[in-house]
Amino acid sequence: MSHLKSYTSRAAQHSNPSARHLLELMDRKKTNLSASVDVTTKAELLRIADECGPYICVLKTHIDIISDFDDDLVTQLIALAEKHEFLIFEDRKFADIGNTVKLQYSSGVHKIASWAHITNAHIIPGEGIVHGLAEVGVPLNRALLLLAEMSSAGSLATGNYTLTALDIARRNRNFCVGFIGQRRLENGEEDFIYMTPGVGLVAKGDGLGQQYRTPRQVVFESGCDVIIVGRGIYGGGNTAENCRLYREAGWNAYLERIAV
Amino acid sequence: MSHLKSYTSRAAQHSNPSARHLLELMDRKKTNLSASVDVTTKAELLRIADECGPYICVLKTHIDIISDFDDDLVTQLIALAEKHEFLIFEDRKFADIGNTVKLQYSSGVHKIASWAHITNAHIIPGEGIVHGLAEVGVPLNRALLLLAEMSSAGSLATGNYTLTALDIARRNRNFCVGFIGQRRLENGEEDFIYMTPGVGLVAKGDGLGQQYRTPRQVVFESGCDVIIVGRGIYGGGNTAENCRLYREAGWNAYLERIAV
Repeated sequence: MSHLKSYTSRAAQHSNPSARHLLELMDRKKTNLSASVDVTTKAELLRIADECGPYICVLKTHIDIISDFDDDLVTQLIALAEKHEFLIFEDRKFADIGNTVKLQYSSGVHKIASWAHITNAHIIPGEGIVHGLAEVGVPLNRALLLLAEMSSAGSLATGNYTLTALDIARRNRNFCVGFIGQRRLENGEEDFIYMTPGVGLVAKGDGLGQQYRTPRQVVFESGCDVIIVGRGIYGGGNTAENCRLYREAGWNAYLERIAV
Repeated sequence: MSHLKSYTSRAAQHSNPSARHLLELMDRKKTNLSASVDVTTKAELLRIADECGPYICVLKTHIDIISDFDDDLVTQLIALAEKHEFLIFEDRKFADIGNTVKLQYSSGVHKIASWAHITNAHIIPGEGIVHGLAEVGVPLNRALLLLAEMSSAGSLATGNYTLTALDIARRNRNFCVGFIGQRRLENGEEDFIYMTPGVGLVAKGDGLGQQYRTPRQVVFESGCDVIIVGRGIYGGGNTAENCRLYREAGWNAYLERIAV
């Protein structure tokens, strides 16, 4: 079972450069925490990214909610990613046909492929979405996660839908390095990276359908790799201290898992 | 069967202002054609929108592929929509949880809700996505289409997934005015508006999974309301002449349908 090994030893199973980089830096920085920063100004995003930087392996962005986005924001984000050594994951949730997502990924104001190490996509349009994104992302050494499950109430990403995501990822391993999901899907030695949103130190909801599970449930019980935490980190004020708490909870759950 | 009536007479069934406006202007302009303009510069988008304007009821945009997007583009698009009387449909395919889509719809560089009369969403995250978007869109009299089916090969929007879209739309009628789909889902007197992509004068594919059906198949046989045509209109050069051909094909299919 690949997830019972260390992140570093799993890196060798991945041909994708971004996946390898991620797995290696997680052990080096001792963190499986991703900060999900859903703020609407450049200054806030950069401030929180800098505060979270030392504690995270992945900064998850929604670049399309930043009202004063400009090319300088990208320059500064890349500089922070190098300073603190984290990867940038633009949580775009691409969901269109192949020809359209190619343009959405490469073009527009945001030019996501030029700076985001990782992005993600829904499989609802069929496998063509992966082929379209791969035409842009593979030459840039980018990585893709497929949405296998969602943490929101009434999600339709269940059952056969989830298993289809696994099939599509298996057929596109050079680019699809893993999943957004709530539990490990594959058995045996093949290796995918699982990132899990909807993580809180206490279980609750947000009134718009989001549901929360604890780091131990996600990493130890369900075998996921990266915990994605948003409002739990920067919502309450003390961002660095919140990062410490989540990093410790996530890391201990990982140590408990690989000690099995 | 609501779709056997004229667009104008169906307008009374809709409480949503954008839906009513659309149905009325379709009969007035004698068009059920939507131009889908997937270009990457402001100048091209404005030029094609102005050329298509007299022939279309809806201009479908992917604003996030325009590399030189600015607020002036929005100002000019709105002016063209008023000059030619068409609605603007930003084909954003929202696909995140309620709290996130609220921000993506209202904020960021693009501020979609401030100018797009219509947008669309996947139901994969569950009904919370509609509630999140409605918090932004309903006060602005905007309308939402749910993706019930897709025209791409291997689409997973089929069977129970499609029927769930219908259920969600029925529970959110003030905002969900219809669907992106390939065929009418409801029977009887309730009324939804169906817009259908993947329409060509000849049936073929694009090599990235897109599949095409003719206007008559879509409007007469499958009971859909608006044909969405992209590369078939502006790909070959003579945009106005292509618009005329598609408008005529779509309109004749509609006249044939309401004459039944």
